Amino acid sequence: MTVKLVAMYTQPDDPADFDRHYFGTHMPLVHAIPGLQRAETSMFTTAVDGGEKTFYREAELYFADQAALESALGTAEAQATSADFLKIAPPGSRLFIATVDD
Amino acid sequence: MTVKLVAMYTQPDDPADFDRHYFGTHMPLVHAIPGLQRAETSMFTTAVDGGEKTFYREAELYFADQAALESALGTAEAQATSADFLKIAPPGSRLFIATVDD
Repeated sequence: MTVKLVAMYTQPDDPADFDRHYFGTHMPLVHAIPGLQRAETSMFTTAVDGGEKTFYREAELYFADQAALESALGTAEAQATSADFLKIAPPGSRLFIATVDD
Repeated sequence: MTVKLVAMYTQPDDPADFDRHYFGTHMPLVHAIPGLQRAETSMFTTAVDGGEKTFYREAELYFADQAALESALGTAEAQATSADFLKIAPPGSRLFIATVDD
């Protein structure tokens, strides 16, 4: 069963500066994680429910299964990515694991 | 540019009852929406950041572009889906539009 690591970034102080680091430094670290099948990044444009635009960006990192994800998280590449996430993620950003339904 | 409608469901009182309605009634309504390219549903299992497990499920509905999404949202099928979403989404659930990076 496919699992994904879901990163939800709250609004950065300087979106242009955030994006520069995100695409120039962070995503290359993500793509080096062993076992990563696919990464999808997106930018929130609208809160359809009329509520707060809580999140700025979402990233979804796909792995074959829970074992592949756990194995990946133990690597130096994932640790470097995690350290960079902690550096760039604005306060209130979230990081979840989800299982994808077939 | 691909856009997606992102639904984030908070924890339901009765997950089994929620899932029954979600897969038996709600997702068939989703799949009837004109212009829908793909729908991915997933269930959150872990808050990796050690924070609250705020969300129970995520659904992502993919459309070819913003125009296709807007056109879809105007249909009776989308209105029926929206009415059902309001019926089942626990308080604090969110609904966003996001643009997917290439």
